[in-house]
Amino acid sequence: METVKGEILSIGTELLMGELTDTNSAYIAARAPSLGIAIQRMSQVGDDLQLLAGAFAAALERADVVFSTGGLGPTQDDLTREAISSALGEEMQVDPDLLEDLKAWFRYRGADMPPRNTKQATLIPSATTIPNNQGTAPGWWVERQGKIVVAMPGPPGEMYNMWQNQVAPKLKGRVRGQVIITRNIKTTDLAEADVAERIAQFAESENPYLGIYAKHDGIHLRIIGRGSTEEEARALMEPVESGILEIMGPHVWGFDDDSPEGALAQVLTESGLTVATMESCTGGLMASTITDVPGSSAYFRGGIVSYSNEAKIANGVPAETIHDHGAISSQTAEAMAKAARHRLAADIGIGVTGVAGPSEQEGKAVGTVFIALTTEGIVKPVALRLPPRRTVVKYRSVTTALVELTRLVRGLTSG
Amino acid sequence: METVKGEILSIGTELLMGELTDTNSAYIAARAPSLGIAIQRMSQVGDDLQLLAGAFAAALERADVVFSTGGLGPTQDDLTREAISSALGEEMQVDPDLLEDLKAWFRYRGADMPPRNTKQATLIPSATTIPNNQGTAPGWWVERQGKIVVAMPGPPGEMYNMWQNQVAPKLKGRVRGQVIITRNIKTTDLAEADVAERIAQFAESENPYLGIYAKHDGIHLRIIGRGSTEEEARALMEPVESGILEIMGPHVWGFDDDSPEGALAQVLTESGLTVATMESCTGGLMASTITDVPGSSAYFRGGIVSYSNEAKIANGVPAETIHDHGAISSQTAEAMAKAARHRLAADIGIGVTGVAGPSEQEGKAVGTVFIALTTEGIVKPVALRLPPRRTVVKYRSVTTALVELTRLVRGLTSG
Repeated sequence: METVKGEILSIGTELLMGELTDTNSAYIAARAPSLGIAIQRMSQVGDDLQLLAGAFAAALERADVVFSTGGLGPTQDDLTREAISSALGEEMQVDPDLLEDLKAWFRYRGADMPPRNTKQATLIPSATTIPNNQGTAPGWWVERQGKIVVAMPGPPGEMYNMWQNQVAPKLKGRVRGQVIITRNIKTTDLAEADVAERIAQFAESENPYLGIYAKHDGIHLRIIGRGSTEEEARALMEPVESGILEIMGPHVWGFDDDSPEGALAQVLTESGLTVATMESCTGGLMASTITDVPGSSAYFRGGIVSYSNEAKIANGVPAETIHDHGAISSQTAEAMAKAARHRLAADIGIGVTGVAGPSEQEGKAVGTVFIALTTEGIVKPVALRLPPRRTVVKYRSVTTALVELTRLVRGLTSG
Repeated sequence: METVKGEILSIGTELLMGELTDTNSAYIAARAPSLGIAIQRMSQVGDDLQLLAGAFAAALERADVVFSTGGLGPTQDDLTREAISSALGEEMQVDPDLLEDLKAWFRYRGADMPPRNTKQATLIPSATTIPNNQGTAPGWWVERQGKIVVAMPGPPGEMYNMWQNQVAPKLKGRVRGQVIITRNIKTTDLAEADVAERIAQFAESENPYLGIYAKHDGIHLRIIGRGSTEEEARALMEPVESGILEIMGPHVWGFDDDSPEGALAQVLTESGLTVATMESCTGGLMASTITDVPGSSAYFRGGIVSYSNEAKIANGVPAETIHDHGAISSQTAEAMAKAARHRLAADIGIGVTGVAGPSEQEGKAVGTVFIALTTEGIVKPVALRLPPRRTVVKYRSVTTALVELTRLVRGLTSG
């Protein structure tokens, strides 16, 4: 099967300042492979006609499909159309229909079209227009000698919309390259080395290929499959995915774009149950993550960030529990969960206590974390030993707590 | 003054998958201009010898200085040395001193050097080595016909260290280009349009150039100055910075890499004062942000996330206050601040209540936020009207609260 090669050009001097990140490239790079296009290079280029024309010409020599974002606005710094025209040696001409559409767009908003916008209504002989229903900048679809240039606007909202509704469907019918599909399996509780050992039997294969990535919210397993069609690629990946799910079982908490708080929102909304939290080492991140979901006030009663023993005791954790077992203990985590549940009148309480660093506490190492979940007649303890970095301790503890909570709610409602 | 042109190549197939972001380019792009190098292009290229050699050759034709990161490891996918050698037509040779250093590095760690690491001890005639005290991959400093190639390792920790200790000092003595300096002034409370209107008098200038950027934590004003030396650029920028500080006065909360929680940590640690929080619309983000700072347990007593009226009342907010004025009111914010201070025995209490969305509450629009700070004999209220997006409401409210808190502590201790 032939490889269809793709390149991405992100256009704009502001991308070269080191502050604004080019997110458009990542968006395209994540989606092109499933359409049969292998991205070989991405570049960020400033608003300079000569550099841009050279970049398009070189990319067209190496690649079959060239994507660009940015530089389609009406100002003199917007030079994408000029650069493509120069690279192909074709001349830009105003298209009367496009010009009428553009004038109508402004009229509809009660304004006259400024003269400088005229260049947004131009085409070259090899180009057709890609409609933009989010702004004034139509894209260009250019085909010449078997090669394709897709020029899209820079604002991500406009670009994503154009990709989904126009570019991806059109490419699907035109490109006959090897399709690459990705499936991301998200796990918790286990260290990278443990995960790697358990799924070692799948690590040797070239297609599907299996990658292991340590992320803020746990270890991700990425299966990458290649085939002449999406179905063929998926058929190769299926046994690996089933095998991993069988081996990793309860450690898997989600797939692809799933978030722990999103999964939790779904089960809590369905069940009508409510939750309250008491957290120390996560410092409020658990409550903040739960409340990142719009509508979370329907099921989140509230939380306590008990960053001192006094705060724990003031909120209902017995002083004896802390005295006898220490603040960093499964007993204190359980008392925190129970206190949160009772004081905030929730169906379920969660307690998290641990050592986020920089130094050990009560003789317990940085990364030691105890989580407890409780509801009527049930206490579920979880103990973690995480890498000793503050951010990792906070994020991984929150992921595990929310994943365990989702499991608990599923168990309660399916029972 | 001549322009010294720079390009950046980030090397590694994993950068083309759409998930791993290339942060090395942004790091270099943010620092090269102050050394007199104008970055004109950045590219991410996969581990393919032909593509890489072509990328180096083309960059060297266009630019005076080419930076690369990645591809210096010992595996067969690490092809940066090979690509540079091929682009320059020079032959790699093992350097006996480098090889001995590398073997010593392994010996020191109680291991034999694997044979494949030998290629990390190679050089070409135009290259000298850049020591790496964080890993096994030394960098290459290549000079030929007035052009420079700087090849650095891909892991950000190793790259940053090599940049700071080796590359930046060496470039300072070698490059004679126009210096570009950036100064970032961070403000809060005001909307982008308000800020733009107030500082309009500085917006026309080309050098220094003034940019306005709306960020999660408020509006940033970026002054960019150019000159033949750092001093010359700074002299041009100084009147603009002073002018902005005079006009924006109390709305400025920090510069460059400052964070609100970092500034707060400093004044609280110096003063020995402690803080407690009660927050609703920010959902725990305020506590989590405060506790992102290592050592925050010295001054942060704890927090309450009162996501329901019951949680507010259970934690000491009078039911009458909520009944009479509503949960979204300056009176409730004040009661929350006082309750947090008393219940958690802190010197200072902060309360934040507002509407994060998705829909209005008590007839108040999304983006309405009330903040109160209190200590013995003092109550400081702040009212905000933020853009109606959940993330923006959470982050901007937290920034304002922490900035106001820092000001309050400064006032208390300077008085």
